[in-house]
Amino acid sequence: MRIDGRHYRTIWPEADAVMVIDQTRLPHRFEIRPLASRDEAAEAIRTMVVRGAPLIGATAAYGVALAMGEDPTDAGLAEAARVLGATRPTAVNLAWALARMEAALRPLPPGGRREATLAEAAAICDEDVAACEAIGRHGAALIAEIHARTGRPVNVLTHCNAGWLATVDWGTALSPIYKAHDAGIPVHVWVDETRPRGQGAALTAFELHGHGVPHTVIADNAGGHLMQHGRVDLCIVGSDRTTATGDVANKIGTYLKALAARDTGVPFYVALPHSTVDWSLTEGVRDIPIEERSSLEVTHVTGADADGVIRTVAIVSPGSPAANPAFDVTPARLVTGLITERGVAPASREGLLALYPERRIGTAA
Amino acid sequence: MRIDGRHYRTIWPEADAVMVIDQTRLPHRFEIRPLASRDEAAEAIRTMVVRGAPLIGATAAYGVALAMGEDPTDAGLAEAARVLGATRPTAVNLAWALARMEAALRPLPPGGRREATLAEAAAICDEDVAACEAIGRHGAALIAEIHARTGRPVNVLTHCNAGWLATVDWGTALSPIYKAHDAGIPVHVWVDETRPRGQGAALTAFELHGHGVPHTVIADNAGGHLMQHGRVDLCIVGSDRTTATGDVANKIGTYLKALAARDTGVPFYVALPHSTVDWSLTEGVRDIPIEERSSLEVTHVTGADADGVIRTVAIVSPGSPAANPAFDVTPARLVTGLITERGVAPASREGLLALYPERRIGTAA
Repeated sequence: MRIDGRHYRTIWPEADAVMVIDQTRLPHRFEIRPLASRDEAAEAIRTMVVRGAPLIGATAAYGVALAMGEDPTDAGLAEAARVLGATRPTAVNLAWALARMEAALRPLPPGGRREATLAEAAAICDEDVAACEAIGRHGAALIAEIHARTGRPVNVLTHCNAGWLATVDWGTALSPIYKAHDAGIPVHVWVDETRPRGQGAALTAFELHGHGVPHTVIADNAGGHLMQHGRVDLCIVGSDRTTATGDVANKIGTYLKALAARDTGVPFYVALPHSTVDWSLTEGVRDIPIEERSSLEVTHVTGADADGVIRTVAIVSPGSPAANPAFDVTPARLVTGLITERGVAPASREGLLALYPERRIGTAA
Repeated sequence: MRIDGRHYRTIWPEADAVMVIDQTRLPHRFEIRPLASRDEAAEAIRTMVVRGAPLIGATAAYGVALAMGEDPTDAGLAEAARVLGATRPTAVNLAWALARMEAALRPLPPGGRREATLAEAAAICDEDVAACEAIGRHGAALIAEIHARTGRPVNVLTHCNAGWLATVDWGTALSPIYKAHDAGIPVHVWVDETRPRGQGAALTAFELHGHGVPHTVIADNAGGHLMQHGRVDLCIVGSDRTTATGDVANKIGTYLKALAARDTGVPFYVALPHSTVDWSLTEGVRDIPIEERSSLEVTHVTGADADGVIRTVAIVSPGSPAANPAFDVTPARLVTGLITERGVAPASREGLLALYPERRIGTAA
């Protein structure tokens, strides 16, 4: 994606550090931050300087590279996987990337690990970009179909940020929108603000505005009403973990939009690369761990005052506690289809296995 | 309700003015504001110094009283009804109260109108208090039943503020909670923050904290997840307009919670006095006018900084537009029951007519 005419990925190596865009400062500040150690990488994931399932995976991969510069022994590798793996519980891309890094490094002598780890992390990033770009092509076809049928601009509702900033480039849910827009298909996006952290209002709106895609920010409460009145043609969201049966963990509130889409006949799609599938799980509501984050994210809001000064204000009545589950699970029965880098499939075991036949039990992976 | 040991209603006459609590200042400031003219009353409704369907009706009634002090002629009465009636479109209590005031005053000579109007406004307030108190008794029985069955504290989810502050006293949705709590039934309330204006975080939390009812504020996105995990025993919300068939217009986002309740088997109740029923409408989604409020309510948030200074900050990416529909409609099929001052009924034409038989066509009202 381009910011002020320059192309950026969300993460890239530079000298002895890994550079990321500090997403806690957006949309009010665009700041590049170096991560110079394993612990800085872990802290960046934990505090959501970087976020979004694919980008969490990529950052963890580079976190292992930084760890190998500090301690390339087997103990150092195991400790890196432990520290980085404990940062956030829901996105499975984190565990996926760490397992891949360990598998690549474990056979190597410690002296060769730093270089190999950088190459593997770069490969993870390049593959993510390719996957997201392919997701965009497959998803754009869905948008084009609707436009061909209606002749009107296509209204897409999305929740949270599953865009360029959530991945290495392109995004998952937003990639089809960028591809459709670039192909001249008129698209308008309803952007859920996504309380409590406001990734929709802060990040998705920032991305879409930067790319020139027409969009409107709405309170998370508004989507059902818009769907009831025919003002949403389809929903596309991302995923932080998808079970082998097509249940989808995504940002808290996704389930509510899926329910409204089902109730009003609006197609509800989930865009994800294969790294987001947890093939070991079959019942999302029961099995996917849901991160509980600080209640301060609910009780306080940070924004820019009229002078551009970043300030934090309390919005909850003093003395009242708050709870903050960060994700919810949308059962596969509410999902019209999964948009993956290999194409669109029903949200079901058979649908996923048709795209990923190497995952069939008894098949060598 | 008591604030610092003193009992308050939300509205009362005093000398030549009508006193209200400025709800735009809560929870950070508790300020009484006098409304001294028809136009000040109208402005207080429009800017949500007062809000909540029953309190809007009561304020409009006193607004007519203030207007009669300015111009007690037929023209003055008609103009008062016009100005006050144009303040907000969704809550039908506004039109109901104005029609009742006009019917009471029209037969009187102008010279007698000021006194009569004060008496009628006071009657509307007293009747609202009695209705809300009765709603509390009927609703508390539902909570008591659940507690008797489970032996656990009863978890109630509510959306927006349908409490003391939304009515003259007691509240609609919160009245059963206060009654149950006062009767010693353990209750815990999940308080939707209710973006964009945050009436849950600011007002419902303030009320419940003041009354000592255990509660937890959550993002509007979180309720579905809590219901999926068995952490909500029932939902109770208010209504701004209920059709003769039981469809319910309430704060934007209510529909999403009703969908989640239906999907997870959680009972979903709507508490309302008869003044909230619009007997002329039969299809809520099609017929109830939905107020579109300023996008600034979405793009900006007001709260207290660490020094207690009230500040407004921008939270949406600069340059991105926002939309702000203020209500949505929950179809009767998603409502378990209506809690009225006359008891609990199914959300249907027959259910409502069983409670209000005087509304049967062909029956003298």
